Amino acid sequence: MAKDTIKQILKKTESLGSKITIQAWVRTKRDTKDLVFIALNDGSCMSNLQVIADKSVISEDVLHSLTTGASCTVSGLLVESPAKEQALELQALSVELLGECPSDYPLQKKRHSFEFLREIGHLRTRTNTFSAVARIRNALTMAVHSFFQEQEFFNVHTPIITASDAEGAGEMFQVTTLPFETFNSSEGIDYSRDFFGKKASLTVSGQLSAETYATALGRVYTFGPTFRAENSNTSRHLAEFWMIEPEMSFCDINGNMDMAEDFLKYVLNYVLENCKEDMEFFNKFIQKGIINDLQEVINSSFIRISYTKAIEDLQSSSVKFEYPVSWGIDLASEHEKYLTEEVYHGPVIITDYPKDIKAFYMKMNDDGKTVRAMDVLVPRLGEIIGGSERENRYDVLLQRIKDLGLEPEDYWWYLDLRKYGSVPHAGFGLGFERLIQYVTGMTNIRDVIPYARSARNCDF
Amino acid sequence: MAKDTIKQILKKTESLGSKITIQAWVRTKRDTKDLVFIALNDGSCMSNLQVIADKSVISEDVLHSLTTGASCTVSGLLVESPAKEQALELQALSVELLGECPSDYPLQKKRHSFEFLREIGHLRTRTNTFSAVARIRNALTMAVHSFFQEQEFFNVHTPIITASDAEGAGEMFQVTTLPFETFNSSEGIDYSRDFFGKKASLTVSGQLSAETYATALGRVYTFGPTFRAENSNTSRHLAEFWMIEPEMSFCDINGNMDMAEDFLKYVLNYVLENCKEDMEFFNKFIQKGIINDLQEVINSSFIRISYTKAIEDLQSSSVKFEYPVSWGIDLASEHEKYLTEEVYHGPVIITDYPKDIKAFYMKMNDDGKTVRAMDVLVPRLGEIIGGSERENRYDVLLQRIKDLGLEPEDYWWYLDLRKYGSVPHAGFGLGFERLIQYVTGMTNIRDVIPYARSARNCDF
Repeated sequence: MAKDTIKQILKKTESLGSKITIQAWVRTKRDTKDLVFIALNDGSCMSNLQVIADKSVISEDVLHSLTTGASCTVSGLLVESPAKEQALELQALSVELLGECPSDYPLQKKRHSFEFLREIGHLRTRTNTFSAVARIRNALTMAVHSFFQEQEFFNVHTPIITASDAEGAGEMFQVTTLPFETFNSSEGIDYSRDFFGKKASLTVSGQLSAETYATALGRVYTFGPTFRAENSNTSRHLAEFWMIEPEMSFCDINGNMDMAEDFLKYVLNYVLENCKEDMEFFNKFIQKGIINDLQEVINSSFIRISYTKAIEDLQSSSVKFEYPVSWGIDLASEHEKYLTEEVYHGPVIITDYPKDIKAFYMKMNDDGKTVRAMDVLVPRLGEIIGGSERENRYDVLLQRIKDLGLEPEDYWWYLDLRKYGSVPHAGFGLGFERLIQYVTGMTNIRDVIPYARSARNCDF
Repeated sequence: MAKDTIKQILKKTESLGSKITIQAWVRTKRDTKDLVFIALNDGSCMSNLQVIADKSVISEDVLHSLTTGASCTVSGLLVESPAKEQALELQALSVELLGECPSDYPLQKKRHSFEFLREIGHLRTRTNTFSAVARIRNALTMAVHSFFQEQEFFNVHTPIITASDAEGAGEMFQVTTLPFETFNSSEGIDYSRDFFGKKASLTVSGQLSAETYATALGRVYTFGPTFRAENSNTSRHLAEFWMIEPEMSFCDINGNMDMAEDFLKYVLNYVLENCKEDMEFFNKFIQKGIINDLQEVINSSFIRISYTKAIEDLQSSSVKFEYPVSWGIDLASEHEKYLTEEVYHGPVIITDYPKDIKAFYMKMNDDGKTVRAMDVLVPRLGEIIGGSERENRYDVLLQRIKDLGLEPEDYWWYLDLRKYGSVPHAGFGLGFERLIQYVTGMTNIRDVIPYARSARNCDF
């Protein structure tokens, strides 16, 4: 294995003058009468390592085969570069071909549309844009873990396959080993013959399971895949996406808002600190000014208003919204964007939503009409985080479950958490891909996950 | 939210004499004429915080309600404890009840069997054993990420739902939104009406996808859930489990073995360093001497032998194995344990297995009979890691796919990696739950994952 990646080599100015060996892929090659210039990339960072080879150290065959996409091993001396594009370059002592790259390689030097690149998902990470997305995704993954670990949360792997319909969310994928080929529903479906002995689905949220852990360990967070079988083919929806769901015992809605605000600032700052080169790329080519936007969010103090105040703000506006505004409606994306972009010019947390548009597990306020929900809105995106204080009163929760037509026996274990040592607790969730979109400015959600799954789309 | 967890409080000896507020659950309570002693636990660590309350600061009602499992808020002075069981204790100034815990609480002070605790999976994390398992699982999660990030790997989220049968492994769960209720297979199954427009399943491995990322970014690792619909109801199998799969470009089987050995030593050391209290619990109550066992692995140099040598070792042994030994067999658990425990007295890496018992993607040796597989065996467990150098020659890989009766068109994108800038690359996989079992000594795999899924078992 090559000892150092290009990222490491470019950082180590103390290696100047030393002999190194690098293995990477050719991005570009040009040659003069005596010299060959090869830009190598190994995916470790956006920067290429510039190789300069005297034609005497490279065979005719190898030179010919070093086309865009080919892989090679180069040994040479790391020296200061006279060119202003880079600080260092590699004076080759030997160049060997590892794998050639025929001329039908789909990633030639020209610019490709994101639509086209989706069709070659197995190769697109070799481009500047998608390798940068992949590195940002990795950095955000670590930012999430770092934040919660520093705050003494425990990561918990909640189950993917579930026999319970957690949020009553509908639209779930069924998981089965029943033999489709010899299946006739007119005889009735005998789930006792299915793998789990009952109907099973893919989870839509790890929250309810996370609550069982929070009421044992104090503070926990999930970070795993979740699923929605929504038949919408938009640039905003995936059938499979990753969610982050922290859950805290001994925490009310105010502690929850504090944590959400700290979390968001921390992960944004983490990426700006750790991914400077990639963020400059997005700032320049994908979403102009995005670094400044994120910096402003980090420096802001999130405004906190009630849903009722938000409705008043919208109603007193002169803007004509597509969806009319009245107390009780679910806020649409246009409303959320207006509030955060036009009214408050920064992040806003909206609290105390009408109970009828929120889930059964949210804590009821004394007014009997609103629940202790909190949604965090940011400019350019709208809602990025949704959460609530949880109903911790056994009787109230049981009544809510019944009122919504859910079956209490399906929630026996969830109700137990309110029976045995119930505590005030709260949590929130955010879609990881939405966060990556927000950080990079990538507009299609399919471009921020390695292999997107959506209606009629399950390639690779 | 309570400012500090018990873990933080017990670490901060500088808080001695200061007033703090703690929110936690009652583990035990006993009282004398004037004093009440309450052991509080909040899940942040195994240790309880001992509270001593004069009966004048606690109402009769609250005192009566502070039974095992109840939750409360205690404010008081943190002082040095005269008792030798703990360094610090809390002299209560006020004690308030948060949530009572009725006497039918299943977790009373007596010891419970793991079988019984599996039936109350939503509560078992409140016990010493299962909270320790949860904290170890969290620490191992971070150990995995820390190791690979320090080695400049990128984490990649490979897809969970797949239309390809990655390893030809069979036994997959089908994922569908076809309406079972109105389904009759005698009319044929029209997968064009299913959500993805084709048959889809839950992944058995992220490796092939990871290879597409490794050949773009250099070094990557997956860490996510994988699935096997094996109808075996044993203490060693789960239908849903978490896998770690690193994949490295510019790496051969030797680099792969080095990485696997470094990885294992790193994560074991991480847990011994970061989870001293929990590991002492496992060392004392679950698997005597386990700390020493793990330390020996960390200090050892892993022996590396070929499969052929392993077979010779087994054949020259006087032990009568249940499964007879001859060149070509798949090693059974009894063989693996014998090699690592009796022959080499430490970790062993076995390489170059017969091609017929290994997957199609493993690199063929020049002998045409063996492939560059490597399995890492450790005492007490047997195989803990399996991996290989991957076949990077297009023609050889294509032939292997055909020879095994697989369809080349199903692997068009995988083959492309060998067509365009192919590189030597290698990787390995390990089941996360097996690692947790190895570290804790827990014998049933269902006890090291929050909610186990297996045949006829999908509760909570």
